[in-house]
Amino acid sequence: MSNKPYKGFEPKWLLTPAPEGSYRSIFRWGDPEFFKYPKESLYKLMKERFDMTDDDFRDYTDDIGFDPVDLSEYPSKIAPEHIAALEKIVGKDFVTTQDYPRLAVAYGCTAYDLLRLRHKEIENLPDVVVYPDTTEQVEQIVAYAVKEKLPVYVYGGGSSVTRGVEAVKGGITLDMRKRFNKVISFNETDQTITVQAGMSGPKLEETLHNAPTLFGAKRPYTCGHFPQSFEYSSVGGWVVTRGAGQNSTYYGTIADIVMGQKYATPIGRIVTSHYPREATGPDLNQIMMGSEGTFGVLTEVTLKVFRWMPENRKRFSYMFKNWEIAMDAAREMMQHECGYSSVFRLSDPEETNLMLKLYNVDETPLAPLLDKLGFQDMQRCMFLGFTDGEKGFSRNVAKNIARIARKYGAMPMTGFVTKSWEKGRFNDPYLRDTLMDFSVTTDTLECTVNWSNMAQVHRDVRAVCHALPNTVVTTHMSHCYPQGANLYFIFITKMNNSAEFKRYHTTILDAIQKSGAAISHHHGIGKMFAPWLEGYLGEKEYGVLKVLKEYFDPDYLMNPGGTIGLDLKPEEKKFLVEKKDYR
Amino acid sequence: MSNKPYKGFEPKWLLTPAPEGSYRSIFRWGDPEFFKYPKESLYKLMKERFDMTDDDFRDYTDDIGFDPVDLSEYPSKIAPEHIAALEKIVGKDFVTTQDYPRLAVAYGCTAYDLLRLRHKEIENLPDVVVYPDTTEQVEQIVAYAVKEKLPVYVYGGGSSVTRGVEAVKGGITLDMRKRFNKVISFNETDQTITVQAGMSGPKLEETLHNAPTLFGAKRPYTCGHFPQSFEYSSVGGWVVTRGAGQNSTYYGTIADIVMGQKYATPIGRIVTSHYPREATGPDLNQIMMGSEGTFGVLTEVTLKVFRWMPENRKRFSYMFKNWEIAMDAAREMMQHECGYSSVFRLSDPEETNLMLKLYNVDETPLAPLLDKLGFQDMQRCMFLGFTDGEKGFSRNVAKNIARIARKYGAMPMTGFVTKSWEKGRFNDPYLRDTLMDFSVTTDTLECTVNWSNMAQVHRDVRAVCHALPNTVVTTHMSHCYPQGANLYFIFITKMNNSAEFKRYHTTILDAIQKSGAAISHHHGIGKMFAPWLEGYLGEKEYGVLKVLKEYFDPDYLMNPGGTIGLDLKPEEKKFLVEKKDYR
Repeated sequence: MSNKPYKGFEPKWLLTPAPEGSYRSIFRWGDPEFFKYPKESLYKLMKERFDMTDDDFRDYTDDIGFDPVDLSEYPSKIAPEHIAALEKIVGKDFVTTQDYPRLAVAYGCTAYDLLRLRHKEIENLPDVVVYPDTTEQVEQIVAYAVKEKLPVYVYGGGSSVTRGVEAVKGGITLDMRKRFNKVISFNETDQTITVQAGMSGPKLEETLHNAPTLFGAKRPYTCGHFPQSFEYSSVGGWVVTRGAGQNSTYYGTIADIVMGQKYATPIGRIVTSHYPREATGPDLNQIMMGSEGTFGVLTEVTLKVFRWMPENRKRFSYMFKNWEIAMDAAREMMQHECGYSSVFRLSDPEETNLMLKLYNVDETPLAPLLDKLGFQDMQRCMFLGFTDGEKGFSRNVAKNIARIARKYGAMPMTGFVTKSWEKGRFNDPYLRDTLMDFSVTTDTLECTVNWSNMAQVHRDVRAVCHALPNTVVTTHMSHCYPQGANLYFIFITKMNNSAEFKRYHTTILDAIQKSGAAISHHHGIGKMFAPWLEGYLGEKEYGVLKVLKEYFDPDYLMNPGGTIGLDLKPEEKKFLVEKKDYR
Repeated sequence: MSNKPYKGFEPKWLLTPAPEGSYRSIFRWGDPEFFKYPKESLYKLMKERFDMTDDDFRDYTDDIGFDPVDLSEYPSKIAPEHIAALEKIVGKDFVTTQDYPRLAVAYGCTAYDLLRLRHKEIENLPDVVVYPDTTEQVEQIVAYAVKEKLPVYVYGGGSSVTRGVEAVKGGITLDMRKRFNKVISFNETDQTITVQAGMSGPKLEETLHNAPTLFGAKRPYTCGHFPQSFEYSSVGGWVVTRGAGQNSTYYGTIADIVMGQKYATPIGRIVTSHYPREATGPDLNQIMMGSEGTFGVLTEVTLKVFRWMPENRKRFSYMFKNWEIAMDAAREMMQHECGYSSVFRLSDPEETNLMLKLYNVDETPLAPLLDKLGFQDMQRCMFLGFTDGEKGFSRNVAKNIARIARKYGAMPMTGFVTKSWEKGRFNDPYLRDTLMDFSVTTDTLECTVNWSNMAQVHRDVRAVCHALPNTVVTTHMSHCYPQGANLYFIFITKMNNSAEFKRYHTTILDAIQKSGAAISHHHGIGKMFAPWLEGYLGEKEYGVLKVLKEYFDPDYLMNPGGTIGLDLKPEEKKFLVEKKDYR
């Protein structure tokens, strides 16, 4: 964030790159040279909301994690013959039991992970990290692990917010980042690309943009999948968790983009079919997606690709008078059958309040104009996005959005707001790291609702959040459909303790399950949300997951330790609502 | 078909309604008062292709099935206490072991079924037919059947072309047509409707068109699902087989339209969730769809509904020079990101040849013009369709289709052709019945291909068909996607024997499996295609279906006798290709 200098006191924001090999280099997001911190007005707001003073920001609450990783108290427990066997499969240089690489793949990115890492709470670690190169190697590793009863975990991009990658039972973690990230094939006729599961978001997009040079393609392409974690997430992670990108309203979630998958499972190679639709029994692609590594290791994915036509993009942003009107307008846009916008993002009043500062709208003439026209703070709702697709299509979507916004009394806010959002869309996690040095902790929870239960879920969940101490909770919908949308809650709170965070998180998840919403729209379940899954799906419905698990992995070696609840004890599960019919 | 009088000999087309209670009233399609027969030029073509003469059409090959159904040789074998128990659940009037109602639900609509019924080959029959009224009744029936080890079959609309409804093991058939066809709820906010599974296509559409009157809705709606069997098919049948309607290129297949499902299974009630997308493990909706009654009885379905805006429809039709050019143009239209047309139908040269006669284009000035402009018979390809959606969207799709058609050298054929197709779109089965009286038998097979294997599958399958004696085989694609399309083969042949038909059908299905195409795009698998399913999916992949079956229905009582291959013996299955990777 390029900021004006503060007029008053400015906290000692940590703007030094973390040393290589340090704890901080693990728990901090992404690029070591990039930093983001709040501008002065936001800093003031924060102090106010969290009942903090400048004194709280004079020094870091805790150790900032610059010291080198030292796991001498947590030595690898794997037998030397296993190391030798793994080395035989992938090569000597690609198997390690060293401290740093083990810790580097031990945690994801939920605040629970970051707080634990900041306090050097080493709960779980893999015993060995392996860097596979080929699908055949992954298959051999899985076969070996099954024979020797070793747990297998996978680390793709590392941005799980559900403890999805955590090696709760030790054993092997496959770190896919180093080598398992290659293009297998590109098919321009079918507009598909097949990649290894460790392919990162940026590398995939770069590959597709350069399709003419790399593959002699007629034009550049895009996969259309841009989660906030884009820069540090992998195709495999997207697929196994059923992720969604910020442009999903047009491109679809990853479950819509996937054409085919290949897995290395304990019972052998599983290859789904690769056709757009078929009537050949239950859909195997949809059975494997969402299994989060518990059925086997995803090795290869075939994805749809789309034409890359950023020149056709139309940006828009509007302000609505209040949340009720805004929800109605958003629904009308989604049900209008004029095509869907690519990014489609509606913020509730509390988020709007924050955004106007975050995107510097408070410093433009728009701010007083809003007040003057009766768009009241903590009532008004910001809506922004942009369209994609063929020129006429893109224009028609934008035109209809404008028409409907007008009908619902919205005020146009220019393309400025959307551009500001775009600038920050992948780098908000840097801001989170900076604030955590002073015990200001940010995390998110999200769910799916239908239009008819949206107001109630929004109200109920926020009421629970607001009853928690020192909490700012902002909400938006960002993945929208004719039948409903996600609701995404960002909560910021003064907190510096992992156990306290877990209790806090639990309270909100309880509220989401009770509200009847789908307990995840696109983050997945992992180990952190697992206690709520069976209660959400229903016991007999959940039984389907169990029989699938026992078919693929009867020894419970694939991502064990609670992932999607498969090896949780009954008493560890939450059943807070009776499964209700939809009406 | 309203025809001009024949100039030469006219066959004795059977234009008398079948008597109530007759065999013919069962094997004949739909409305007893509606008839369709070929016009003279088509009749002549038929004689030529099948090496037939007027003599072959002087009288019907066989008994025309006017005599009353008599099953005295096939008495119901169900014990009286079971009848009493079922009567207790649904009421005395809604349980029957009488001949006619048993035979009426014994067969579907593949030519194999019709040939067997025409020859009174009674292979399989339910012992009792039950007409449930409520979900609770269906649940009680399933629970009773499980307790007493009675097989349970379901008859929805009766238009299965896969022997999906055939009561191979006797027992109970639930005939859903009489009572299990009610609206459960309509939700205009979410744009969804929940119905009992026996709801018919026309009743559903009528309900949605009348939503303002029936539910006080703001506007009329449509479900957008119009299979050729529309008039005699049920929502339940669509869903369990993963069907697709003729407008699926815009509205999606039923797998896209379904929001939620409820099943009565041997282990109890299963309710899927009802959200547009979620990341809560494998997708249960997609696991239940395609189970074809083998996991339990589908009781209720929640469907998306769309705004009914026929006023925005834009019709189009074009002629392409040849199949290669036409395929390229169709692919370009699908990958253009301008939105999708609702009906999108491209015929290959042999089908085009037939269509020009069937739709009377041969009698318009367009016919000589085509010849003159070098669009040669048996080379040229007819393409037709119409758009739906919001006005600007619909117009933009049609505009882009026109532009791309022009780019590929197509000749516009006016809206006349599309209107002719629309007239016949649901009543072609009547023509089939009329021709079968003279041993001219029609049936269809279909598959999914990607664009890159379309030419090869089209060529390979047709080569096999053409090697069969007396065969006309026409092909079209009618459900299209950016990554591929279906290929739909209609074959017409001189044949009057069910065993011979089965051999014939097998030869073509072998060719489809060998070609590597998905062995069904939307007909489903049933009992007739079951031998090929495991070979198509792969053994380990198919194993998923088996464990699901054993979870839901360990006693194999739900639609038993080969449905989706679950209780076939290994030697009954076909493994004609090694499962290959997609590239």
